[in-house]
Amino acid sequence: MRNAVIDFSKMTTSIVALVTDQVRNGETVIGYGFGSNGRYAQGGILRERLIPRILETPPKELLDDRDILDPLKVQTTMLANEKPGGHGDRAVAAAVIDMAVWDAVAKIEEKPLWRLLSDKFNNGKFDEEVLVYPGGGYYYDGREIDGLCEEMQRYLDLGYRIVKMKIGGASLSKDMARIEAVLKILGDKGENLAVDANGKFGLAEALEYAKEIEPLGLAWYEEPGDPLDYELHRKLISQYDGAVAIGENSLSHQDVVNFALYGGLRPNLDWIQMDPALGYGLTEYLHTINILKPLGWAKKRHVPHGGHQLGMNVAAGLQLGGTESYPLVFKPFGGLADNVLIENGLTKVPEVPGIGIELKSEIFSLFSSLTQG
Amino acid sequence: MRNAVIDFSKMTTSIVALVTDQVRNGETVIGYGFGSNGRYAQGGILRERLIPRILETPPKELLDDRDILDPLKVQTTMLANEKPGGHGDRAVAAAVIDMAVWDAVAKIEEKPLWRLLSDKFNNGKFDEEVLVYPGGGYYYDGREIDGLCEEMQRYLDLGYRIVKMKIGGASLSKDMARIEAVLKILGDKGENLAVDANGKFGLAEALEYAKEIEPLGLAWYEEPGDPLDYELHRKLISQYDGAVAIGENSLSHQDVVNFALYGGLRPNLDWIQMDPALGYGLTEYLHTINILKPLGWAKKRHVPHGGHQLGMNVAAGLQLGGTESYPLVFKPFGGLADNVLIENGLTKVPEVPGIGIELKSEIFSLFSSLTQG
Repeated sequence: MRNAVIDFSKMTTSIVALVTDQVRNGETVIGYGFGSNGRYAQGGILRERLIPRILETPPKELLDDRDILDPLKVQTTMLANEKPGGHGDRAVAAAVIDMAVWDAVAKIEEKPLWRLLSDKFNNGKFDEEVLVYPGGGYYYDGREIDGLCEEMQRYLDLGYRIVKMKIGGASLSKDMARIEAVLKILGDKGENLAVDANGKFGLAEALEYAKEIEPLGLAWYEEPGDPLDYELHRKLISQYDGAVAIGENSLSHQDVVNFALYGGLRPNLDWIQMDPALGYGLTEYLHTINILKPLGWAKKRHVPHGGHQLGMNVAAGLQLGGTESYPLVFKPFGGLADNVLIENGLTKVPEVPGIGIELKSEIFSLFSSLTQG
Repeated sequence: MRNAVIDFSKMTTSIVALVTDQVRNGETVIGYGFGSNGRYAQGGILRERLIPRILETPPKELLDDRDILDPLKVQTTMLANEKPGGHGDRAVAAAVIDMAVWDAVAKIEEKPLWRLLSDKFNNGKFDEEVLVYPGGGYYYDGREIDGLCEEMQRYLDLGYRIVKMKIGGASLSKDMARIEAVLKILGDKGENLAVDANGKFGLAEALEYAKEIEPLGLAWYEEPGDPLDYELHRKLISQYDGAVAIGENSLSHQDVVNFALYGGLRPNLDWIQMDPALGYGLTEYLHTINILKPLGWAKKRHVPHGGHQLGMNVAAGLQLGGTESYPLVFKPFGGLADNVLIENGLTKVPEVPGIGIELKSEIFSLFSSLTQG
């Protein structure tokens, strides 16, 4: 599987099981965390820096005033003696632990994570149904159109409404033929199709694609250029009236804020797709949402990347715009609970404590192997 | 040892020995590389991602048309299938290998690295003497003034002219007392003293310090705030007429360019201190210098961070503004060749092939242990 920039055949990730001394319903509470796709396993940073710092810290310093793990205190502890800037693999490693901490906290409070987030940060409001869209639309060597259309049809059959496809891995004319073919399947509803260049284009190419796709009224044009090239995005957006989506490769609040400040993004139109399982985790994600608010960004403009259950919990509990989903790829980490139902692009949130990893048998058995023996 | 933000007692780094099949003067050519201080060892990323990608690539694809290793091809190869953005630990790991590649190439060409760089990128021009200044001026618990003054006096005795001290690790009034004490040693020559906040300040505090130090005419005010907070720097600089120095925590050309575009930096006054042994190495450093040129940044405004021999070679061969030096700390990686002479803040470049690591016995014996047995 490949996008316009990278091949995923050697992609790896890290998983962490956080075994607490808490017992609920007769069972030890264990929090589970993993890194979202695209940024590789972080065993070195986890084992050499982040985990030792946590284990060397007196437990009391990691707890809130109810003696429950405090995600922010864990974050501060594991990032002690780290220099500012340079938010890359370290941010991914921190996100793995941060996910396990939030999973544990929700389980200790005996709430689904979405409800915990709703109670803590959203005045008890939440969305029972969350908009999910499949990240996909890959290249199929030799079967570019047929392979793509079959994949898209499968998403529609699964109940999705908005779908997304890769661009930039072929010529503009070939990509336009791929787009036209998918639009046909979608009944020519451009608003249900997003395209994703995975940051590959320079300005000239980004503009060429923009000119061709603008009349189609697509859902969004994702990652046209390098995620740190704010000038490119500013210039592109000044000539493109459709929506743009960015953020999966912005691994800190600073990087997202800079995109918002300098990239020409429009808070009433564009989408921010920071991944709560990549850039220092949900803790940093929550901070980013808050810090973007005064810049005009409503929660509904955030649609987390990654296609994992964490994104779905955050989207439901904070009433975001939706979340990505990977029903077919990145197994076992991508995708929601087993046998989850999607109707008209919406899915219902689960009712189990924590993130819900126990509802996904393949990944749960992987985590269970960590804590047994 | 600590600065305003981090404690260095658990700092680690990675070293790499690149054994080639080339022989010069009867000896196998081996290139040596290490990561600059501040960003920890990168064994995981090196062993799991970067080194395997190089070893899996047909040697021919890593060579230039003279069949000598091509640093840019090695860089592209080791970063294959890495997503854009997120320039952190990965950039440091790449820099370790990149240094070893450049050291090997210079040895294969039987030239000091500074001469190779001069020939390749600077029309054969170079500086025989390079301005070096010691990174230092630490906090001494209980002996704040005396400890600091002793350290500074040692630098002057060693032959340095410009010195640098940490600020932001104490109150403004205590820091000002430390600054006044050092200025006394320097004969009140503010232009020979730089101060370094290591990115700690928010805007208000950065401005308070700026107001106090502005009349002193200091050499520069280094890393006032977070290296990704361009707005802070822009606002600070609009109210501070002295020079500012930034860049040691910008680990990619994109991050440095964004600083130049949005941080309010003045190409005729401020300094850029990107570290060629951190952010994807010398290969990326050269690219950054080139890409900043059209924005008005002359080579003389670059003064690499890190205090290592690589920085000295780059400064000499490209005629930069100078380079940092660590005569007393970060042993064995900080500091220049053994018994190097500094006079009036200048040092002469060495005449051995490569970076000159063989001239530094402590680090050379460490590298030798890698290749023996």
